[in-house]
Amino acid sequence: MSAPETTASSPPQEHKKIFLAAVDESEESIHALSWFVNKILPASSSGHHHRSTLVLVYVKPPPPLYFSPDGHVFSADVMAAMDKYRNDVAECVMVKAKRVCKQAAGDNDNGDYQVKVETMIENGDARDVICQVAEKLGVDVLVMGSHGYGPIKRAFLGSVSNHCAQNVKCPILIIKRPKSNN
Amino acid sequence: MSAPETTASSPPQEHKKIFLAAVDESEESIHALSWFVNKILPASSSGHHHRSTLVLVYVKPPPPLYFSPDGHVFSADVMAAMDKYRNDVAECVMVKAKRVCKQAAGDNDNGDYQVKVETMIENGDARDVICQVAEKLGVDVLVMGSHGYGPIKRAFLGSVSNHCAQNVKCPILIIKRPKSNN
Repeated sequence: MSAPETTASSPPQEHKKIFLAAVDESEESIHALSWFVNKILPASSSGHHHRSTLVLVYVKPPPPLYFSPDGHVFSADVMAAMDKYRNDVAECVMVKAKRVCKQAAGDNDNGDYQVKVETMIENGDARDVICQVAEKLGVDVLVMGSHGYGPIKRAFLGSVSNHCAQNVKCPILIIKRPKSNN
Repeated sequence: MSAPETTASSPPQEHKKIFLAAVDESEESIHALSWFVNKILPASSSGHHHRSTLVLVYVKPPPPLYFSPDGHVFSADVMAAMDKYRNDVAECVMVKAKRVCKQAAGDNDNGDYQVKVETMIENGDARDVICQVAEKLGVDVLVMGSHGYGPIKRAFLGSVSNHCAQNVKCPILIIKRPKSNN
């Protein structure tokens, strides 16, 4: 038996790409993921005899500090219920996101389309956590949607994509949901 | 300015992609273009029996209104010299940008890598002109570098990539120059 010939050092085009897609509850986020996995990912992952990885990351916001009318924090039961709700939302987002990836893989399956999809659920401020994860994983491209807030709403709510565009060190692909779909 | 050729009816997977790369005098801009044409473009443009178009756009800033010490505007000769300088800079940027594309095409030439490179030189405020060109050409992705200014410099100079990320309607890929190359 002879092993297939390989060169000791792979040329740069054999580099396994890691894409990080930030997902959340918004339709903008699902639109961005769908656009990416259908328009860019198939081409970027075919014909190169390698397997790219698409990491889906969802960041759970920190639990809000609610106070009951008498000034006390809510009971452990209430807090646990809220925590369960946050976990359910995270799981629901991931199910939806994975379905988008699976569908795209089916649509683009030409026997050479290989993308490994992984999921991550993190906690904290999405703006910072996404940048940290991108750096930690050494991703090639960070992919995310944009809520497309107007200037006033943006001033109050900030924008995760703006923050990441300014702070993340890797290339970032920001995809907006077309107005006609709103 | 002429829109790149498109066929009247093509199936979705045969869609000819149009990429718009904004280039300027900065090293960040050349780094971004180089990263894109080497890492993303070859995969996005091979194995699909179609020819993508990469449009390189350079936006000449409007001529400054200089006044001589006696309060008069500079003579026609001086203005013409300044205009010539602006044109020379534009041409120089385009030569450099096309060289980057040609080199990448040579490095990735597997007989199936076909990208048509076009150039455009426009006038005005780069932030607005780039968004207008992206919309007019109906580009699939706008590609640009980021100067990576700190918060103070950014507050004064603004950021073309920030502005485009907020205002352009198509997906935008922002590529930063790694710190280690500075």
